[in-house]
Amino acid sequence: MSALPDPPSSDPPPPDRVSIRFEPDGARPKEVRVPGGATLFDAASWNGIAVDSTCGGHGTCKKCRMRVVEGDVPVSRLDPRAFSPDELRAGWRLACRARAEQDLRVEVPPLVTRPKAATVGVGRQVILRPAVQKRCVTLPEPTLSDQRTDLERLRDALPDLELRVGLPAVRDLARVLRPADGGAADFTVTAVVVDDVLVDVEPGDTTERLFGIAFDLGTTTVVATLLDLATGTPVAVASLLNPQQPYGADVITRISATMMDPDSLGRLTALAHEGLDQLVGEVCADGGVERREVYEIALAGNATMVHLALGIPPEPLGVAPFVMASRSFDDLVAADLGVVAHPRARAYVFPALGAYVGGDIVAGALASGMDRDRRIRLFIDIGTNCEILLAAGDRLLATAAPAGPAFEGAAIRCGMRAAPGAVEGVKISDEDVLLQVIGDVAPVGLAGSGLVDAVAAMVGAGLVDASGRLVAADSPGVPPGLAARLRLVGQERVFVLAARGAESGAELGEDPADWLYLSQRDIRELQFAKAAIATGWMLLLEEQGLTAADVAQVLLAGSFGSYLSPSSAVRIGLVPEVALLRIVSAGNVAGEGAKMALLSLRERAAAQALLEEVHYVELSDRPDFNDRFVDRLAFPV
Amino acid sequence: MSALPDPPSSDPPPPDRVSIRFEPDGARPKEVRVPGGATLFDAASWNGIAVDSTCGGHGTCKKCRMRVVEGDVPVSRLDPRAFSPDELRAGWRLACRARAEQDLRVEVPPLVTRPKAATVGVGRQVILRPAVQKRCVTLPEPTLSDQRTDLERLRDALPDLELRVGLPAVRDLARVLRPADGGAADFTVTAVVVDDVLVDVEPGDTTERLFGIAFDLGTTTVVATLLDLATGTPVAVASLLNPQQPYGADVITRISATMMDPDSLGRLTALAHEGLDQLVGEVCADGGVERREVYEIALAGNATMVHLALGIPPEPLGVAPFVMASRSFDDLVAADLGVVAHPRARAYVFPALGAYVGGDIVAGALASGMDRDRRIRLFIDIGTNCEILLAAGDRLLATAAPAGPAFEGAAIRCGMRAAPGAVEGVKISDEDVLLQVIGDVAPVGLAGSGLVDAVAAMVGAGLVDASGRLVAADSPGVPPGLAARLRLVGQERVFVLAARGAESGAELGEDPADWLYLSQRDIRELQFAKAAIATGWMLLLEEQGLTAADVAQVLLAGSFGSYLSPSSAVRIGLVPEVALLRIVSAGNVAGEGAKMALLSLRERAAAQALLEEVHYVELSDRPDFNDRFVDRLAFPV
Repeated sequence: MSALPDPPSSDPPPPDRVSIRFEPDGARPKEVRVPGGATLFDAASWNGIAVDSTCGGHGTCKKCRMRVVEGDVPVSRLDPRAFSPDELRAGWRLACRARAEQDLRVEVPPLVTRPKAATVGVGRQVILRPAVQKRCVTLPEPTLSDQRTDLERLRDALPDLELRVGLPAVRDLARVLRPADGGAADFTVTAVVVDDVLVDVEPGDTTERLFGIAFDLGTTTVVATLLDLATGTPVAVASLLNPQQPYGADVITRISATMMDPDSLGRLTALAHEGLDQLVGEVCADGGVERREVYEIALAGNATMVHLALGIPPEPLGVAPFVMASRSFDDLVAADLGVVAHPRARAYVFPALGAYVGGDIVAGALASGMDRDRRIRLFIDIGTNCEILLAAGDRLLATAAPAGPAFEGAAIRCGMRAAPGAVEGVKISDEDVLLQVIGDVAPVGLAGSGLVDAVAAMVGAGLVDASGRLVAADSPGVPPGLAARLRLVGQERVFVLAARGAESGAELGEDPADWLYLSQRDIRELQFAKAAIATGWMLLLEEQGLTAADVAQVLLAGSFGSYLSPSSAVRIGLVPEVALLRIVSAGNVAGEGAKMALLSLRERAAAQALLEEVHYVELSDRPDFNDRFVDRLAFPV
Repeated sequence: MSALPDPPSSDPPPPDRVSIRFEPDGARPKEVRVPGGATLFDAASWNGIAVDSTCGGHGTCKKCRMRVVEGDVPVSRLDPRAFSPDELRAGWRLACRARAEQDLRVEVPPLVTRPKAATVGVGRQVILRPAVQKRCVTLPEPTLSDQRTDLERLRDALPDLELRVGLPAVRDLARVLRPADGGAADFTVTAVVVDDVLVDVEPGDTTERLFGIAFDLGTTTVVATLLDLATGTPVAVASLLNPQQPYGADVITRISATMMDPDSLGRLTALAHEGLDQLVGEVCADGGVERREVYEIALAGNATMVHLALGIPPEPLGVAPFVMASRSFDDLVAADLGVVAHPRARAYVFPALGAYVGGDIVAGALASGMDRDRRIRLFIDIGTNCEILLAAGDRLLATAAPAGPAFEGAAIRCGMRAAPGAVEGVKISDEDVLLQVIGDVAPVGLAGSGLVDAVAAMVGAGLVDASGRLVAADSPGVPPGLAARLRLVGQERVFVLAARGAESGAELGEDPADWLYLSQRDIRELQFAKAAIATGWMLLLEEQGLTAADVAQVLLAGSFGSYLSPSSAVRIGLVPEVALLRIVSAGNVAGEGAKMALLSLRERAAAQALLEEVHYVELSDRPDFNDRFVDRLAFPV
């Protein structure tokens, strides 16, 4: 995922997902799952494990040393320049060159450098320049001939800053300079400055304790990353299901809830706040950081999530003409989002492009460098609502496609979210069905990536025709082993993937309640979803006079999109038919964007610039939308 | 007090104080006491009674019409141009020319003009340009081809403003545009803007409801004036004793309280907040104004009062080297001062020059135009702490003199604050003592102005010698009627002014508890106080190479100073010996300054400029201070 990775080392494609157990020196080990072929550098970075680096994963600093102690990682071209033959034999590798193509156990040495840059997003190197800074100064003590006020004394010691100073900081300063407990006055203090605001004055030198939290506030999942802003390194990551789930799986249901009951907005806001604050508690505990050492938070979320979290009525987002209260919010504090951190911690919320191309997409576009590349690239964030960006030269187009809840499992009979027991991968070979199950346990349901895999495999095996119809069990060419799986549930044709909750290869009983299956209706749901998405990117390409063949790269984003098998996505026509290597899983780019905003004011400015450059294409008022949608329903065979 | 008043009309000087009963059309009548010779215009303005005027009391607009219905006011030069002979006979006068030299009853007609300027301070005309403004706009309703956000819609309708918009205003805007009660959406709204911050969006057109409150937060008294910021007119005035009084009469005692008990700061802050907020309740009720229609407050107070009200530890103000936490405070809201007004009402607090030349003095200097005049003028604010400003050409010098509590009555045996029963004026003629008592009741104590009068009269009658010693009853030249009043209380000589609480002329008994008297020690207290003040202005004059004879005007300020008899003040050497007409009682200039700041951003900028121009002269580290102080102890005879 870094800018200049080695080419994949072997012919057979790596497995879709691999497990890596990171064992950082002096910290708790962490087991993570990442797409096969990801570098150890990216895998660590995505999962909040600090890695030494000054070049940002470009292979030049040779600082991102890790030792592979279980599993095998080939020696890269650069490794011999960084390690002795003995070290190489002991498993030492440069993390930015080391691709995880099987399950691994990896030791991570302690940090030795204090970086000036961090690598986040899709191979983006970010120069550290957070909005938060700490400055330690020793003030001259006042005398009758130097009656400057406390604040003048501090300002004069920080001549390069034009500080805005609120009342609490003045109170703090007075108390720190003359402790009420009668302790000795200490004129060495640390000023905490966010942008140009003096938010606190702390006694002594606390410059090394400087933290921020980046949030990805998704409709389904909320993720928080605690970042050390002095070094740019992640300290801890935590996630939870969005506690607003009882009000509906998607944004429209949640908006409807506020329209039907005037108290719902308050409750949805409170639930968002509780979720965010619970994560703050978790990452702070995990990272050994006091809440009051968190001076800024950054948040990426779609427009509805942001409106709800800020207590703004979301109704206008749900009905035409789909109007937001505001694209962006100035002068927010963490408390506005229910987050208990430093009492004057600021909050940065990613600005939105439109009611359905929210701050999460702006963050994602930033993290994937959509504005930095003149190649023709598609960015597709797949979820209930699918957001699509097309970068073509100096043009940046955006649209939103209503994909529906198929990928979240909500409208699928045996669907479930990606959690232990969920089928995330499906292969059909000859007469057998091979399942990849999260947690390596017995299968209990079908995750979105498993759904796409299953349908792709069924199309490939001739079990589903181009129009999306499940063939009859007695159709010509269906092998008997598969024909046995084509059954009926009531009047509806289904394809049984496995006995639910049973060991692989277990006998299928006769009770449909015991089956893990895909129904004809499920396939239709997926068809509608992928047609909506495909219509979206087709129309954007046409808007620029381009075709699918012109696309140099497809970035699949979002917690679902990142885990999608590129070959299956191509197979069902969800993404343009390009070489599989050009289809890149971009990871949780919204969260990565939030981290970038926290680490760098320059990136924040870039997000603002992005907002001004993007041209939004509204699909719902295009006369040819329905025709194009029907065109895209079919499966390419 | 206006810039160009008619000269006083009669030879005998007016009485020190007169009562005026104003009867505004459609509002409750109000009885006020003002220095004799004040114009009705100033008397009304100081006391929150709205007067029609577009010229600001300069005699040109002829709008400040009032009708004197009891008592007599001579016809001025300008009156015949404004009124018919019948009207003049009926008592109609221009208020800006009408001097109150006796008790009066005056009818005030309703306002007919919507002024663009207001007169406040010492004859200062202020162009209305408050920080608060309201703008009513009708927004275009959104459509699919106009998906601008609510906020963009509002911003585009106010193209001349660069608004800063906080979260609450975005919430308000969304709610106002789409009422939650299902009422019809109203796209006509009024934006409330303070400086460049959008603080609220109100449904419909509310531009005529725009209020602010100016506070004079004194150590002894707190005064609040509710101002209509759309017209610049005062709506209501209220005052109360500073509720911090139980913690001490002066700033030093209150500072000491916080040093002895760590909880005291919190309690003193709470008391200040309660006092300010009680006044808000009173002026709002009196003026028929909702608290949420008050969008800004302005406050002038000394550094200690401001530190305490803002919850900042005041200890450093009380001990050398006398350091403030800050001169000025940005971004304050009314809630920081405990005031319940509009939830986002801003607060402007006058910046301070030094620990003992506070924002009250800066406000006073602004209100008396100390920065606008090239004449040599002294501004003396007399109280427990006396602040002195000297304006000389383009130089402005300031100092503070520790006068002690004599003027507040605290260190005086029979002293009391200026309240009903307090002797505020004393004359000694031949063998008799004539007392002027507040409320025209029996005398129970001696106010500061009565103290100065009494000592001046006793010096004049030879009862006190130049050194400040009370003569013996049997000294040569003491008339028998006065000699009978020279008595002993214990071992101490006293001069009995009256039988305490008894009718004028009542027989003096033999029990000192029944006497209202002035003791030798009281006279010493006053001597020390006036010597400290006189040393202050002498040293400032010398600093500029000037003498008392060069002084063109002396402004006596503060709730005490304004009521001082100029002749008595000269007699005891409290002020320079200049022609009495050059000694001007400036009224409550701190409160006037606060009103000016509320009415005009330009005046606020002028206050800031003043702060940067003034040169502070510290008296306590001058080697010659003590010698000069001893020189000024004697009474000029």
